[in-house]
Amino acid sequence: MSYIAPVKDMLFDIEHLADIAQVARMPGLEDAGLETAQAVLEECARFNQDVVAPLNVAGDKHPSSFKDGKVMTTPGFKEAFAQYVAGGWQGLQHPAEFGGQGLPKTIGAACGEMLNSANMSFALCPLLSDGAIEALLTAGSDELKATYLEKLVSGQWTGTMNLTEPQAGSDLAMVRSRAEPQPDGTYKVFGTKIFITYGEHDMAENIVHLVLARVVGAPEGVKGISLFVVPKFLVGKDGSLAARNDVHCVSIEHKLGIKASPTAVLQYGDHGGAIGYLVGEENRGLEYMFIMMNAARYAVGMQGVAIAERAYQHAVAYAKDRVQSRPVDGSMNASAPIIHHPDVKRMLMTMRAYTEGCRAMAAVAAAAYDAAHHHADADTRKQNQAFYEYMVPLVKGYSTEMSLEVASLGVQVHGGMGFIEETGAAQYLRDARILTIYEGTTAIQANDLVGRKTARDGGQVAKAIAGQIEKTEAELAKRDSAAAQAVGKRLKAAREAFVDVVDFVAGRTKAAPNAVFAGSVPYLMLAGNLVAGWQLARSLLVAEELAKAGTDTAFMQAKIATARFYAEHILNKAPGLRDSIVDGAESVTALAIDAF
Amino acid sequence: MSYIAPVKDMLFDIEHLADIAQVARMPGLEDAGLETAQAVLEECARFNQDVVAPLNVAGDKHPSSFKDGKVMTTPGFKEAFAQYVAGGWQGLQHPAEFGGQGLPKTIGAACGEMLNSANMSFALCPLLSDGAIEALLTAGSDELKATYLEKLVSGQWTGTMNLTEPQAGSDLAMVRSRAEPQPDGTYKVFGTKIFITYGEHDMAENIVHLVLARVVGAPEGVKGISLFVVPKFLVGKDGSLAARNDVHCVSIEHKLGIKASPTAVLQYGDHGGAIGYLVGEENRGLEYMFIMMNAARYAVGMQGVAIAERAYQHAVAYAKDRVQSRPVDGSMNASAPIIHHPDVKRMLMTMRAYTEGCRAMAAVAAAAYDAAHHHADADTRKQNQAFYEYMVPLVKGYSTEMSLEVASLGVQVHGGMGFIEETGAAQYLRDARILTIYEGTTAIQANDLVGRKTARDGGQVAKAIAGQIEKTEAELAKRDSAAAQAVGKRLKAAREAFVDVVDFVAGRTKAAPNAVFAGSVPYLMLAGNLVAGWQLARSLLVAEELAKAGTDTAFMQAKIATARFYAEHILNKAPGLRDSIVDGAESVTALAIDAF
Repeated sequence: MSYIAPVKDMLFDIEHLADIAQVARMPGLEDAGLETAQAVLEECARFNQDVVAPLNVAGDKHPSSFKDGKVMTTPGFKEAFAQYVAGGWQGLQHPAEFGGQGLPKTIGAACGEMLNSANMSFALCPLLSDGAIEALLTAGSDELKATYLEKLVSGQWTGTMNLTEPQAGSDLAMVRSRAEPQPDGTYKVFGTKIFITYGEHDMAENIVHLVLARVVGAPEGVKGISLFVVPKFLVGKDGSLAARNDVHCVSIEHKLGIKASPTAVLQYGDHGGAIGYLVGEENRGLEYMFIMMNAARYAVGMQGVAIAERAYQHAVAYAKDRVQSRPVDGSMNASAPIIHHPDVKRMLMTMRAYTEGCRAMAAVAAAAYDAAHHHADADTRKQNQAFYEYMVPLVKGYSTEMSLEVASLGVQVHGGMGFIEETGAAQYLRDARILTIYEGTTAIQANDLVGRKTARDGGQVAKAIAGQIEKTEAELAKRDSAAAQAVGKRLKAAREAFVDVVDFVAGRTKAAPNAVFAGSVPYLMLAGNLVAGWQLARSLLVAEELAKAGTDTAFMQAKIATARFYAEHILNKAPGLRDSIVDGAESVTALAIDAF
Repeated sequence: MSYIAPVKDMLFDIEHLADIAQVARMPGLEDAGLETAQAVLEECARFNQDVVAPLNVAGDKHPSSFKDGKVMTTPGFKEAFAQYVAGGWQGLQHPAEFGGQGLPKTIGAACGEMLNSANMSFALCPLLSDGAIEALLTAGSDELKATYLEKLVSGQWTGTMNLTEPQAGSDLAMVRSRAEPQPDGTYKVFGTKIFITYGEHDMAENIVHLVLARVVGAPEGVKGISLFVVPKFLVGKDGSLAARNDVHCVSIEHKLGIKASPTAVLQYGDHGGAIGYLVGEENRGLEYMFIMMNAARYAVGMQGVAIAERAYQHAVAYAKDRVQSRPVDGSMNASAPIIHHPDVKRMLMTMRAYTEGCRAMAAVAAAAYDAAHHHADADTRKQNQAFYEYMVPLVKGYSTEMSLEVASLGVQVHGGMGFIEETGAAQYLRDARILTIYEGTTAIQANDLVGRKTARDGGQVAKAIAGQIEKTEAELAKRDSAAAQAVGKRLKAAREAFVDVVDFVAGRTKAAPNAVFAGSVPYLMLAGNLVAGWQLARSLLVAEELAKAGTDTAFMQAKIATARFYAEHILNKAPGLRDSIVDGAESVTALAIDAF
């Protein structure tokens, strides 16, 4: 088996960190307790291990191809996607009203991880459909919902996000695609969109494009952008497919990784105009798009966890199998599997600790999302919403940055074989390399963290998190184990560094924007590192109790060892980052542009 | 122009850090002063910019190919190599006695950087020839020297290193290739060698393989390994090519990067035995191979600097060209080239600082090599040899690890375009990924640093370096500039962290090998970071003086800014690493093998 879903670790997080029992007390989520989580995760594991994971290498070797406006996906993808649809997986987190299962994000996120571990290129298609569904649920008219949602939720049709244009990447103010209002209330859409994931493919009968464009006469900049539904095939009153719309794929990209996922250039309106339907109100497109993007950003963060997990499993298997050199401590009189060598252990522990830390962070963020949407108490909803919004750039930014390091270490564990494509380790690195870029680069996440999530409220949410962490430190201090003491020491130092940085960011963003934004990514990395380390510290507290009680002792001891490793080898980077941010801003921007 | 050699920065290092005036006072190097360095570097820059660099993308798109035992290199490579040979570049550092130019490593290293920046796949062929030349110069009989050296030094023939076998990678004790002595004093060699760079190609008329094998009846393990010359074509008494030898390429690898460089599987002796000639004495092969490897390890470190420089130049060009979003400080009322955004500057400064720091470290190491080989005073030679040997794992290990980060940042600066292969940024990342693996992984370098270079002498050489660094700190303390003060503060903290770690390593390697080797790579990273930062601190001292004197002020100010950035954003990682190494060893090895 090329991938085994870490169901036990996921359930640990869901039960003990995300507190699913609490989630299942919220109105509308009564059926979503631990038992449901376990049943869904086990079924999901089987499907992804058996059906989706075996296609991952094939997707890399035989990428999607383009000919005469059509995209052919990797052989086997279409059939696997049909099984995905038949299993109802697309609707997992979506409302029952439109045929979904209405499960909480606390469970759905773990399923998303599995799908992405199994095959990130494949998983991108449903990931984009999820975003389109979110946008329509939030801002779509009843008519749009009735026409599109059920088929998107079932997976019969798929969705896309069309933001980027050649001159408009991170800067959406520069979007030029235009929409001309028609007498019948529809619009004609014209323009070129690039980097459209699954913008054209052969796995579903229709593709529902969500497209940013300017209505003729709209204001300049982001305030003049509207959002449109532009289906590949127009849809009749009875829901049947009608004429082909004027949106065409003109090419797909030749990429470093995720080669099976077609990245399309789409041309709108070259033959008279693509018929589009306004979503919500004119000029509010960016606001709606952010709904899709926030869902997608969390999902991309999970892709980071997912690819890290897969790379870790691959590396462990090799390290247990490859025999080379005697152990340095003289414990064996013959060459040993390389996992016995301390540096190989260090690499594997780094991969493992990052992965478990980011998974734990994401689980807690998912529970906050559920509480923000479902909790009976309005204040609790508000608090959880604020926490979740703070977490989105961390889940996206930190988990994806760590995935690059983890995938690169995965190659390193394989030695020379890691550089040979047949080994498979290099694919994870190539695939992962997009994660810190799409759905907003790490710098864009960091801008969001600095501006909307920290400076705007004077650091209140961030400080509240620091306060929570202090409580965990206090609990660790009560434990007499060496592991708890070691973790407590590093957690305290990291939290103090974080508070210093939050003060710096909250206090200086207006007065010295260059200085603050010079440290925006280091701030994101520090915050993500801290929150992931905090969740592992919480895990240690639980695991020590359970190990003492004799519950799954081996698993609990591994959790304790992993938490301690994280604290001593990853979390301890935090004070250095504080110094870079608070003392080092000037040297970031000192060099004149000409001197580069 | 896709690459412009950083001649000015190289000459700064050669003049002020490596002190070429001092080198040119050594017997045999009298002609190799600054003027010579400048003339050679400028000529070398022209050749590499005009002839070699333009083939870099072609090599990636049209890799070497294999058919019927033959390897066809990328179109254009053969012609470029002929120009390389005609220009006498292969002989740059080799003795005049065999047709070389006998220039010091202080100059040769910079030329090596240029060739590798221009085209790493191409540069690998001469790099391996250099290793073969070193081995023959050190251990070859007069007959072997007479037969092979002149043609290797001219570049008419090329050389290879044959160490790895499927079961013997880092662990050369497991080499199984065998050599049977023949009545005429030659040997018949049998076995399979893998990962042989330029093991077969069409750029030269003969290939001189240096091959590790066991003479029948030799001891087990590394003490029974001998080194042989096995030419592709046998050589007649008059130097003419004679019969084809029984060594054949059976396949080449499909790799993540350096695709133009053919990585061959070579089969020895399938048709009766490949005729080989013993180098030096039987069973001393590993010792001779280490001579080649030490030269090659330094050269691979320079490859790290080289690919980092190229990735930096590519990223700077894009960042100056790509217009996206307004500056955060409101300084421009329109969208700006992205180099104006603080986080893009942070990424570019990181790339630049790493590259300049590692270049400076390598320059100083090269000067020590020259002094070790040429200085009139025996004690000075010995001291310099010890320093150089300490530096080799740092130059190799640290410069290559940093090159992965730099090349990855290069992709990130390009945003979505970085992920598209046509952009070219991804190639540097793929190419760089081999550097921390071949010629000994970073862990193998770190073992060398711990065992032979630190524990063996009780940390004396390391402590002597720390003493030198303290002197630089004292000089910085005398300066009143904010930059000198900031650099001094971080240098002191890093040096103190280093000394703690050296004490830990020197004191604990025997008693607690697992604990020490658990931190071996972090120790290497700390030491490399410190020495690179130290050399930039020295650069700052020089640059401040020269800027005050009005000499090339813009360059000097950029050097000061870069040194300060390095200290505040890279060197400041050192204390965290100390904590990982000294306090965190237990958590590296705590997890049971079964628990992974």
